[in-house]
Amino acid sequence: MIKTVYKAHILYTKEKSHFEVLENGYVAVDTEGRVAGVAGSLAALDCGDAPVVDFGNKLLIPAMNDMHVHAPQVHNQGVAMDLELLPWLQNYTFPEESKYADVEYAERMYRRFLHTQWLFGTMRSVVFGTVHTESTRKLMHLYQETGMGALVGKVAMNRNCPPALCEDVEAAVAGNEALIAEFNAPDALVRPIITPRFVPSCTPDLLKACGELAAKYQLPVQSHLSENTSEIAWVAELEPDSEHYGDAYNRYGLFGQTPTIMAHCVWTRGKELELMKRNGVMVAHCPTSNFNLSSGMAPIRTLLDEGVRIGLGSDISGGHDLNMFRMLVYAIQVSKMHYQLDHDKSFLTLPETFWIATKSAGSFFGKVGSFEPGYDFDALVIDDDVLYPAEYSLVHRLERYIYLGDDRQIVHRFCCGREVPEPRLL
Amino acid sequence: MIKTVYKAHILYTKEKSHFEVLENGYVAVDTEGRVAGVAGSLAALDCGDAPVVDFGNKLLIPAMNDMHVHAPQVHNQGVAMDLELLPWLQNYTFPEESKYADVEYAERMYRRFLHTQWLFGTMRSVVFGTVHTESTRKLMHLYQETGMGALVGKVAMNRNCPPALCEDVEAAVAGNEALIAEFNAPDALVRPIITPRFVPSCTPDLLKACGELAAKYQLPVQSHLSENTSEIAWVAELEPDSEHYGDAYNRYGLFGQTPTIMAHCVWTRGKELELMKRNGVMVAHCPTSNFNLSSGMAPIRTLLDEGVRIGLGSDISGGHDLNMFRMLVYAIQVSKMHYQLDHDKSFLTLPETFWIATKSAGSFFGKVGSFEPGYDFDALVIDDDVLYPAEYSLVHRLERYIYLGDDRQIVHRFCCGREVPEPRLL
Repeated sequence: MIKTVYKAHILYTKEKSHFEVLENGYVAVDTEGRVAGVAGSLAALDCGDAPVVDFGNKLLIPAMNDMHVHAPQVHNQGVAMDLELLPWLQNYTFPEESKYADVEYAERMYRRFLHTQWLFGTMRSVVFGTVHTESTRKLMHLYQETGMGALVGKVAMNRNCPPALCEDVEAAVAGNEALIAEFNAPDALVRPIITPRFVPSCTPDLLKACGELAAKYQLPVQSHLSENTSEIAWVAELEPDSEHYGDAYNRYGLFGQTPTIMAHCVWTRGKELELMKRNGVMVAHCPTSNFNLSSGMAPIRTLLDEGVRIGLGSDISGGHDLNMFRMLVYAIQVSKMHYQLDHDKSFLTLPETFWIATKSAGSFFGKVGSFEPGYDFDALVIDDDVLYPAEYSLVHRLERYIYLGDDRQIVHRFCCGREVPEPRLL
Repeated sequence: MIKTVYKAHILYTKEKSHFEVLENGYVAVDTEGRVAGVAGSLAALDCGDAPVVDFGNKLLIPAMNDMHVHAPQVHNQGVAMDLELLPWLQNYTFPEESKYADVEYAERMYRRFLHTQWLFGTMRSVVFGTVHTESTRKLMHLYQETGMGALVGKVAMNRNCPPALCEDVEAAVAGNEALIAEFNAPDALVRPIITPRFVPSCTPDLLKACGELAAKYQLPVQSHLSENTSEIAWVAELEPDSEHYGDAYNRYGLFGQTPTIMAHCVWTRGKELELMKRNGVMVAHCPTSNFNLSSGMAPIRTLLDEGVRIGLGSDISGGHDLNMFRMLVYAIQVSKMHYQLDHDKSFLTLPETFWIATKSAGSFFGKVGSFEPGYDFDALVIDDDVLYPAEYSLVHRLERYIYLGDDRQIVHRFCCGREVPEPRLL
């Protein structure tokens, strides 16, 4: 049954080649929060007497999805950009995450994090918590309270990290199972995700236990892959039997055996790329982080053309910006630097990049990221009045919002059909 | 005589190696708008009974300088990012600039441009206008009206451009001399700059005339240099006698014979670099533009270590962002990609990059960009209350403002000692 019809200038990417553009279009949302229909006229939709909410000259677009983000690094956002990945983890990240043993500290920081995600219109996320079960439980409750969707991981780690962040295999399994028991409803907006930090942080025993948890509870998996050349060399030392970094996950059932997303893949090539493709593993491309940590520039055009699934991630605090629209700009820019070196690799177009950030990324959550019938209605209403909209086409208005806009222009946020109010800070 | 003393947390870069940090410090500004002294206590300054303005917990920093920007491309800001330099000029830039034959259109757009510069705290600029004398005069009057400083160029171009933007050599000289007669007071905030667009747009006759104007009136020079590999190949064809692109300016007295700034220098190496260094030519590094137009990544660490003068430019609308703080972020990121390829090239530090954007860039205008005694008081007051300042050191507060802040946190703007009010839009 149709609950509400929204009228606005509607833009979304059903295909990556171009925007669907409905000037003064209508989208009908049913009582389950799903799109029932989208059309250029009200008459073309069978809406009965459902109320029509008219957003006037504003833009209505799918909401943003942040496919890789470390919520407990919110305090470090915008500082400590002077090291590469491995020393950066030791010097900045692990000390901060150790503080999350304190659930009160965690709640204060997590509320700050969620508030910023809300500001920038990120309605779904794939999130790393910390190793701490209680703080991770708190983060999941806070997501439930906001009404935004998330796959949240209690981080598994038991080697090459400070004692405060090490957890033995049984405790890791028990903590995960406690969260799974509480949160693993199949249609829930907030669900657990199995989260080995990365190979250097996890002994083979722990990786094996993670793979078993994913299989037993049919849960998705997230981790990091081929981010930095020193990291890759270290993984090759730690896991000499693995053919490549991805294989070190694959042999433990953590590489597409259940839905899997791997952050970065800056240096993914050859057999690793082939295996990702074959197993349907999604890449979370995090361009600001790859710049800030001197990791390199991921070959997104190549991955896209090879048919690898891709989404975009902010990767706070390797990345500095929780505004996912800026991640679209950076993704295009990275692809242009590959193009500059090799004109056979065309750079990403705006609709391709928007499709990556919405429909492609959203597929990790189900039917999310488009306004096609059956999709969850995750949407943003953009009032771009300060950007001189009368002078531009609708696609150019969206492009200008992506390049020049900020949170001030997002005037409504919907997740799964419900308007999401401003979350409370502590 | 001291006119006003400002109290705040003061940060600036006298040397590029580190920030000068004065917690609850004082800066005394004289009746000429210049810094008379800066100190950690009021007693250390000889201020008589000058009033003290207390900015409390806010940050006081040198204002931003945009060293390369095309004011008449403001309408194209954030759109038309789908081509490389040369076709982009033909398809987007030249058609837009042609509209500036209409002074009313120019005024409306230029006011929009200046308003955005003001929002982001850019108090000095090196600006391209168009070929049109009257619109350029209007732009200079508008800068005077705002109280912000600028070197403004009537663009010289007479080949490889649409007829509407071509101007013969005599008309170019006459137009320039009219503006010079009106604006060329030695201490004026708004002054002319000789502006051959770039070698492909200017016949040898026109380049020669530009060089003669610069010499006759002792005026600075701006142009574009070694931005794109196709452009460089074209210049080599057009000017076969020149040893390199820079030499095609140098032979006409447009390469350091008077103070000269060249935008981009993405591909400047070898003899061109040597000549820039020898002649004191400044580079305007425009990282967002170099990404957006697929130009490449300028070797800023190399240029800096070689002793070449550098500033940062937004290069609207090749660049999309008039917020110069974002240009610092991008400059660091570009240097990190060079570092990733060659660990002998360390990446830019935050104080180095801040120094480039303030004191180094500011030297093109005189004594601008620092709070040392004798410098013009160009300053911004930053209220970073939304960024949780209590949790961070003053340098980290500034770093977080640079990475995460926007115009909302700039609460006062000073140029040459005077507070600059919000410019009027049409």
